[in-house]
Parts: sequence; C-alpha cells; structure tokens
Amino acid sequence: MQMLPAPTFVDVIDAAAHLEGVAHRTPVFTSSTANERTGASLFFKCENFQRMGAFKFRGAYNAISHFDYVQRDAGVLTYSSGNHAQATALSARLAGIRATIIMPHDAPAAKVAATQGYGGEVIIYDRYKENREEIGLRLSRERGMTLVPPYDHPHVIAGQGTAVCEMVEETGPLDMLFVCLGGGGLLAGAALAAAELSPGCRVIGVEPEAGNDGQQSLAKGEIVHIEVPHTIADGAAATHLGIYTFPIIQRLVETVVTVTDVQLIETMRFFAQRMKMVVEPTGCLAAAAVMSGIVPVEGKRVGVLVSGGNVDLARFGQFLA
Amino acid sequence: MQMLPAPTFVDVIDAAAHLEGVAHRTPVFTSSTANERTGASLFFKCENFQRMGAFKFRGAYNAISHFDYVQRDAGVLTYSSGNHAQATALSARLAGIRATIIMPHDAPAAKVAATQGYGGEVIIYDRYKENREEIGLRLSRERGMTLVPPYDHPHVIAGQGTAVCEMVEETGPLDMLFVCLGGGGLLAGAALAAAELSPGCRVIGVEPEAGNDGQQSLAKGEIVHIEVPHTIADGAAATHLGIYTFPIIQRLVETVVTVTDVQLIETMRFFAQRMKMVVEPTGCLAAAAVMSGIVPVEGKRVGVLVSGGNVDLARFGQFLA
Repeated sequence: MQMLPAPTFVDVIDAAAHLEGVAHRTPVFTSSTANERTGASLFFKCENFQRMGAFKFRGAYNAISHFDYVQRDAGVLTYSSGNHAQATALSARLAGIRATIIMPHDAPAAKVAATQGYGGEVIIYDRYKENREEIGLRLSRERGMTLVPPYDHPHVIAGQGTAVCEMVEETGPLDMLFVCLGGGGLLAGAALAAAELSPGCRVIGVEPEAGNDGQQSLAKGEIVHIEVPHTIADGAAATHLGIYTFPIIQRLVETVVTVTDVQLIETMRFFAQRMKMVVEPTGCLAAAAVMSGIVPVEGKRVGVLVSGGNVDLARFGQFLA
Repeated sequence: MQMLPAPTFVDVIDAAAHLEGVAHRTPVFTSSTANERTGASLFFKCENFQRMGAFKFRGAYNAISHFDYVQRDAGVLTYSSGNHAQATALSARLAGIRATIIMPHDAPAAKVAATQGYGGEVIIYDRYKENREEIGLRLSRERGMTLVPPYDHPHVIAGQGTAVCEMVEETGPLDMLFVCLGGGGLLAGAALAAAELSPGCRVIGVEPEAGNDGQQSLAKGEIVHIEVPHTIADGAAATHLGIYTFPIIQRLVETVVTVTDVQLIETMRFFAQRMKMVVEPTGCLAAAAVMSGIVPVEGKRVGVLVSGGNVDLARFGQFLA
C-alpha cells in the first residue's frame, strides 16, 4: 500500500462533506443524573445510533468515497472481527462496489452473518496459524482490491473525527473530551477536530485496563505492542497503535487512562437504566472514566464519545440481570 | 375540580412554548432495516429519551406551568402507579412546588423510590379496598392541592401533543401516524397536532389486545369501561378513556388496532438489537402495529411514537434473553 500523507483537520472537514446525508447525524444527549453525580456538564455524543451501530461507518465510508475509478472497479478489502467489518460491507454496498472482509475463524456467527447481510464476501482465516495482515496484502495484490485497515489510515481517521465536528457544533466549546482508545482511529480523529474547533480542550483517551498499550506507548514515546487483551471491551482489543494514529495522539492527547471491566458493566447499566440506550462494552469506555471519577471533571463542560451499540442481545441481557 | 374547555391546537402551541428549554427535544430516528421490512418510510419519535424517560413529562409540566399563585402555593396532587407519578414529581420540583402522589400498595418499589427521589410525597392506598379518585378528591379538598390526573385534562393532552409538533417539524407531512393508547392523553394530543400540521394524515391508535376499551368505545360511540387488563404494556392499562380524550379521539382518530404481548416483546427486541434503544412494553405498542403488518403501510411516510423507556432492568434483560 502506498504511503499517504498524515491526516489534518482539513481532511476531517473534507470527510464531513463526503458523509453529509449518508451518515446519521447522531444526537448529543445530556442527563441530569449524570451531571448531578459528577458535578460536571456532560455531553454524550451517541454513535451507538450511527448506521450499523457504531462510529466505524464514518471512517470506512469516507475511505471508500475517496476511491478512484480503478479502485472502485476492483473493490475494497479489509480485515476485522468487529464493527469495521460491517462498516466496510455497508459502505461498499452504498458505494456500489465489492467488499471482501477477512475474519477470524472464531468470529461470532452473528457478526459474520451481519457482514454478509450487507453484501460483503467473508474470508475466514485461522488466527492461531495465519496472519491477517499477510492475507490482506496477498489478496490485495492478487485481486487489485484496495485495503482499508480498521484504524491506521488517513481517511479512516479523518472520517471518525467528523463525530466531534458535529458534537462541538451542537455543544459549543468543551473543557474536556473523553474518547475510547483501541487502535486510535477515533481518538486521533477526535483530537484533530477538537484542537481546531475547541482550542484548549483537554483530550483524554480511555483504554481497558487489561490492554493499556496506548498508555504504555505514550509513556515510552514509541508504539508498544501487547498480547491480545482479555476484556469485555472487544472493540478496543487492538494490540498496538498505528503509524498514523500514534503521532497524532502523542501530539494532541493529554493522557490515556484505563477502566476495569466492572466499571464498564456499571456504565452499561447506567446507560440502559437512566439514558435508555444500548451501549456495547467498548462504547462505555469514555463514560466509565468520567462516571467513576478517575479524572476530576467537576465544574467542567465535558464531551463523552459513546462509540457503539453492537452487543449480542442475550449477552447484554446478562449484563443487566 | 372545575370543568375546563376542551383543548384545541392553540393549546398545543401554547404548551410547546411552556415546554421550550425545559423538555428535551427528543430525536426522530430512522432505520433502514425497519424501512426494508415494511416497505415504508418510518420515523420514530423517541420519547423514551424524554426527561424521566417518557412523554408524560410534557403533559404534567404543562399543567403545572399553568398554575396560578394560589395553586402553586398549595401544590399539585395526582394518582398514578406509572410514568405520570414521576412526571408530576419532577415537574413540581422544577416548578418549585409541592407534589403529592397517590400510589397503589402494590406499585413496584422502584417506582415509588423514583417518585420520592424527585421529591414527591407518596401516599399509598389499597387498590382492592379504596378508590384512588375518591382519595384524590378528598385530599384535594382538605389540602387545597390541584389535582392533575394522568390523562384526562386539557393541559395534559395539549402537553403530550407537543411531541407531534416537534416530529412533523422534522419529518414534514406524514401519511400515517401510529400512537399508543391507554387513557388517550397522548393519542388525543397527537391527533390535535397532526390534524393541523399534517392535514390528511391518518392517525391510528394502538392498544394491547387484552385491554381494547378504546376500540370498543369507538365502535359503541361511548366510553366503555373494562376490568384492569392483564398485559405487559402496564402504561396502557387504563380501564377507560376520559371525558376530554374520548371526543377528540372519536373526531380525529381513524381507527384503533390491537397488538399482542408477544408482538410487543418482538418489537422490544428489535429496538434493542437494531436501534440500540431501551423501550418499555407500552412504548412498543405503536411500532408493533407497524412492524407486524397489522395495518398496511407500504409506500407511506409513517410516524411512530415511541412513548417511553421505563422498564425494570432485570425484567428487560429477561425479555432479551
């Protein structure tokens, strides 16, 4: 894959134009209860209500919308066991192009079915014996398809950043912004947007405690690789930041904090009970850091990104029981 | 209680002014999946995201905001085991006046606690031995408090109608509008608003099959009283329409249809899985009629009122399992 220039705020604005009328403009919710508990003014940007249930649609669609005729003809290729798979399949369908998604052999049947339901071709690999990046590169060469990875791509980062553009347009300037952190696509995009639209806003990344490679990377000043973490926040189980996302996070993100699975479940219950929303574990990361008081927010205007709502119904029911 | 004039569209507009900046302007959601399944363009007005979790806030707050100084001084009184109890308690707190809520002895502890949490005084009665209307009238006389019943009040009806004002402002004219029906406060208010803002829009009420007193009342041309129905749609368990709501429904509502508890559960699961929303059984009534194909909607622009999201978390978890 050719190296593209690092994304800037201009790319985020460009992405917003491409997503206009295609992505849902998701609502920004407030909750008196959450405000009372934290002493802050919290604004929840609800990307669980985005198309296919997560912010991932923004990045995938933006990347595909930048394809030239040759790229469109061959189609898009990606690897993902999660929301990026469905985001790519849906985006490709909307753009009228082919999509091939490489998924691990142990991906939930429901996610494979959902991806196929959007018209994507699913190729299964054995994640204990094979390397998805290698399969991706090989298929990309053989079929001429363009690889759009889940987070480490300028157009993906720029697309994710549009969520924060919409948010700040509605809320006005923010003192702080909490964003979940897996591979860093959303956090990097959010930071680019916040730096320009709400100067001085402190941007804070939130990782699952079991997989704090982002925190370690900031401390060490280089990308740290970890083993696949054991956490219910499956959307933030990336093992390392990317070559595009890390420098942006290093430059624009104040700090990265971690939350436990127990705190995620508490937050999930809060969202269901008080805000009537279904939020997947990963989608609870940012809010969990705020609601658990890990970072003091009293008296502040605080943006909280709720990243997605794709959780298996039976599993969700168990979390609520 | 003094008889007030029947509400008109002017009262709905007046209510919208009173609720401006106090009630949440809830979002109108669309779902490609729901559209594909029904062949219609569906617009879901999501009052589950309203303050205290249901449209009931609109009516209660509007009624209280019309109190004069004498009424404010004595406070508000109501009887309700459900959302109107919390709506009244919260509205009274926001207006800075006292609230007394008469609740049955077997009301869920969570609902009693929630009502008290908003600062309301709760008086428990034995619903097998006592009559809540009589207790209400007696307390109203003794304490000088103004009774705001759950649905049969012009300001309550007008307040509920504001949900449809907001909806049509966003969607433009609709061909059909589906609204849940218990005592008829929401349906009557919605019909007043739709008749004026979307002329020709067919307004359809939806009741639980077990309690179709509204359907019977329209057929008979007079208010039919029934036994308390056994249905999971506890918010639509009213046993009869009101003297204010019935004439409006008779004049402006095309028909009333019924759905089963099984259809409500299917719809609740659809909302959670595909639209990432927690909706209480009663809140699923309107959508269940549309999604189950009871009334043909193909090719139509259809408004669907999602009335509330106050369902016990453990119970909700069981419905999803």
